[in-house]
Amino acid sequence: MSGRVVIYGGRGALGATVVSHFKANNWWVGSIDLAANEAADVSIVVNKDADFVGQEQQILSEVSSALNGEKLDAVICVAGGWAGGNAKKDLAKNTDLMMKQSIWTSAISATVAANNLKAGGLLVLTGAKPALGGTPGMIGYGMAKAAVHQLTKSLAAKDSGLPENSLAVAILPITLDTPMNRKWMPDADHSTWTPLEFVADLFHKWTKGAERPANGSLVQLVTKNSKTDLVIADQ
Amino acid sequence: MSGRVVIYGGRGALGATVVSHFKANNWWVGSIDLAANEAADVSIVVNKDADFVGQEQQILSEVSSALNGEKLDAVICVAGGWAGGNAKKDLAKNTDLMMKQSIWTSAISATVAANNLKAGGLLVLTGAKPALGGTPGMIGYGMAKAAVHQLTKSLAAKDSGLPENSLAVAILPITLDTPMNRKWMPDADHSTWTPLEFVADLFHKWTKGAERPANGSLVQLVTKNSKTDLVIADQ
Repeated sequence: MSGRVVIYGGRGALGATVVSHFKANNWWVGSIDLAANEAADVSIVVNKDADFVGQEQQILSEVSSALNGEKLDAVICVAGGWAGGNAKKDLAKNTDLMMKQSIWTSAISATVAANNLKAGGLLVLTGAKPALGGTPGMIGYGMAKAAVHQLTKSLAAKDSGLPENSLAVAILPITLDTPMNRKWMPDADHSTWTPLEFVADLFHKWTKGAERPANGSLVQLVTKNSKTDLVIADQ
Repeated sequence: MSGRVVIYGGRGALGATVVSHFKANNWWVGSIDLAANEAADVSIVVNKDADFVGQEQQILSEVSSALNGEKLDAVICVAGGWAGGNAKKDLAKNTDLMMKQSIWTSAISATVAANNLKAGGLLVLTGAKPALGGTPGMIGYGMAKAAVHQLTKSLAAKDSGLPENSLAVAILPITLDTPMNRKWMPDADHSTWTPLEFVADLFHKWTKGAERPANGSLVQLVTKNSKTDLVIADQ
């Protein structure tokens, strides 16, 4: 076995691609999501009716049982969602959903990493390039992703609770080439969308210590002519 | 009457000072907090057992009743709290509390402003200077305040839902000179703490159109030798 990884959001489009990629490279893979991923070695199905603390407790407990005393090489959080809307209407509703889908999952991933990652291990979170600035048409989404960006910087700093020499970074996708995006934006220029397999391979490289960005980096995935560049944000 | 302002957090140390300052300048003042402020013209006492959407609905409804068709000149959110802690333990609990105390109150203030502010009105939120970078010893706090910073930028952008020519800014205090801070840090250098009356006067100036920073500014309050400078953050 090459290593052990837990993927939060392992049933989503990107997450399932990441699960398959690590499995194909002979890893032990745990998936955390609202539904099981049968391709993973272990699936933790989150109780969606539990509150933030309840979900944290459940996940910490089930990860600990699944690992049975072993440590993780990587924790990868690709869970998330999207909601539009400005300040005029439904801001609480949209912000609440985004906090659950991005802040809860990212913070729980951080705690899973703090308690189960090996020294020198990898924690990846998922931000969003637009949230580096204002996002007036998707205010709740921008707030949640900005919180994830700042969390990444906290985790990279001394005494964050992560094990020694671990690497905490966030990927900031623009548009991922998912089936849902193809369905809803059939006429968009798909050569500017980032392929899921590229992202999965990037994570795998980072677990092997290859091409690691600096700790705390916000790594923008900029795809042009079907080629993706990694552009580290200034923030 | 000079104008109408709503203060979210009007019962806190800073909030109560702001309420008194505007009253002394002949304003109509509404206070929103978990307890009433008798110095205000109207107090909206938030149902702390309600969820995010429930609190938004309650506050929107009571602000609308209190205004009785009039518009606000300013909405000022100085609600907030503090919790320490890194990723190792109780991160969900601490983050949950910080989201409620900073993100909920700020987002609801934004919606109150979007629906009740005059054209050219003022919305002030409260961020925190440390959250411009990583905050490994207070991870939940940093995330919530980073979300408020990004919210400020969203609100300043076109089509945020705020009325025309309104000004959305955040103050980023370092340490405020409150009775609680005096109690817990008796030996600190108080000449580097920002007086509450300075902040109240600053808000009052901004409502009069004086010394307004650029829309979307994160205004750091840097106090040295008992003198406070406003330093706009780069982010």
